[in-house]
Amino acid sequence: MTPTVAVLAGGVGAARYLRGLLGIVPARAVTAIVNTGDDTELHGLSISPDLDTIIYTLAGAIDPERGWGLARETWRAMEALQRYTSVRPAGSTAAPTWFNLGDQDLATHFYRTARLAEGATLTDVTAEIARAWGLEPTLLPMTDQRFRTVVELAVGDEAGRRVSFQDYFVRLRHGVPVSDVTFEHDGARLTDAAEAALVGADTVVIAPSNPLVSIAPIRALAGVDELLAARRERVVAVSPIVGGTALKGPADRMLVELGHEASVVGVARLYRSIASTLVIDRVDAHLADEVRSAGMRCVVTDTVMSSPEVAQALAATTLDI
Amino acid sequence: MTPTVAVLAGGVGAARYLRGLLGIVPARAVTAIVNTGDDTELHGLSISPDLDTIIYTLAGAIDPERGWGLARETWRAMEALQRYTSVRPAGSTAAPTWFNLGDQDLATHFYRTARLAEGATLTDVTAEIARAWGLEPTLLPMTDQRFRTVVELAVGDEAGRRVSFQDYFVRLRHGVPVSDVTFEHDGARLTDAAEAALVGADTVVIAPSNPLVSIAPIRALAGVDELLAARRERVVAVSPIVGGTALKGPADRMLVELGHEASVVGVARLYRSIASTLVIDRVDAHLADEVRSAGMRCVVTDTVMSSPEVAQALAATTLDI
Repeated sequence: MTPTVAVLAGGVGAARYLRGLLGIVPARAVTAIVNTGDDTELHGLSISPDLDTIIYTLAGAIDPERGWGLARETWRAMEALQRYTSVRPAGSTAAPTWFNLGDQDLATHFYRTARLAEGATLTDVTAEIARAWGLEPTLLPMTDQRFRTVVELAVGDEAGRRVSFQDYFVRLRHGVPVSDVTFEHDGARLTDAAEAALVGADTVVIAPSNPLVSIAPIRALAGVDELLAARRERVVAVSPIVGGTALKGPADRMLVELGHEASVVGVARLYRSIASTLVIDRVDAHLADEVRSAGMRCVVTDTVMSSPEVAQALAATTLDI
Repeated sequence: MTPTVAVLAGGVGAARYLRGLLGIVPARAVTAIVNTGDDTELHGLSISPDLDTIIYTLAGAIDPERGWGLARETWRAMEALQRYTSVRPAGSTAAPTWFNLGDQDLATHFYRTARLAEGATLTDVTAEIARAWGLEPTLLPMTDQRFRTVVELAVGDEAGRRVSFQDYFVRLRHGVPVSDVTFEHDGARLTDAAEAALVGADTVVIAPSNPLVSIAPIRALAGVDELLAARRERVVAVSPIVGGTALKGPADRMLVELGHEASVVGVARLYRSIASTLVIDRVDAHLADEVRSAGMRCVVTDTVMSSPEVAQALAATTLDI
């Protein structure tokens, strides 16, 4: 019997971890539970960035330079959209060109949008999209209900303004300090499939994703933290912070801005109630004792997944624990 | 004072007529009132084929071979969509690939969809799109409300099945006999702007468009036929039937299938209550007396707009009447 793994996942870091994991365990043993807090609607289309990043990465179709979107992509629709920005009336946000959608990538959003309009759940649609890309692991959105991560900006004129995650992340290029992260939803629930995976998995891995905007949305669903706490001995987290910085994205700055420490110790404090072990990079080996003092077991290894081999070794480490 | 012209318009034929008209009168004198009965939603996008054909044609951006869509277009999104047709569950119509949307063309649908979602009227959005293409004539959708042309199929197994106009026109390539054309709407009204144009124009032209699926939807709006009948002396129609056939599309077959005559005489019988004059092509000159017997004045000229010069001459003829 193959041990099963459930992975709490955000975008790029989680995708690379999952790719490593699938190099060492059979796909049928793997379930990813993916953040949908940064899902958005643009041009009438339903967009699920983290799900797509994981699907495209596991399918080997991701653009290796950008880390998002499809390789060999073209941008004709986006280029053509610029024509309309000049005629947009004041107050309109139609024809946004700050969120790049590649021409091939659009097909995924077309399919998702049409299926959701037909009444399919995001869980169903995600399974269909994964199958279209030949993927065998189970990829689950954390919830089938609407759930939106909202970022409160902390800068001068904009202080207190609340924007969608994509507004912050893409339009503002996560270059603006934030004063709060909140989640807008109406009693959104972890899906039954995701709950079953979390309850039944031999190991639960918190992927190296942003704790505050990728993992926190999953934890914000009713019962998830309690469920993880009850299984704490089986839960292992990989620090997304390496040497005090995030490999990608704003996790390091965000941690500081929201009163945490941008270090593996800060990560340990966020995860200690729900995970028993934190995997940290060798550059942070000197902080291992502090992680332990914070209440977690600590394993030191290479966590920067610069090659499939490193990703597989990291995955093996998380499973060995 | 420049005489003003209001044009009841469908797609390709109307677009070419309008292009000719704009060669001889100032743009500010021209208002097109455009059929929206074949508007549709695909992939979550709001698509207005006749409006777009007119806009792209007048902007000189239409693909001259196809007669629809943009020149130098690419089809990457549509090609990518094929991946999803194989995973679509039974009963789902997601990921339709029979309705081709070019990559650049998508931008127009993105803008329209987003603006309508913001609460703008189709009239407003159409004006914005026209402005984005540098167009000066007034282009108006016939209504700002939902209005859908429905075609009832007449063939063996499918007899009685009712499909959307695009289903019939594009998916079935208008190759299936029809037994009825009906209009689904909930009291849709001619817009105020369109009504003002019809009331105030010095000349009203019924463009050479399909009488049953391009012009009939406009006539189906409450009060339009009465308004045209009251102005009958100022209304001139151009026959879309030349030598018993339609230059483009299924108008000839449809006329016969629905109990009319596929000739300029059949067209005259459809229009005589609302228009005083029918412009027919030279090849139909021998039918001019029959048109007159049917109750319309008849003018014979070249109506096949194979060049801008012919289109301008045709437009001049319609205005001279």
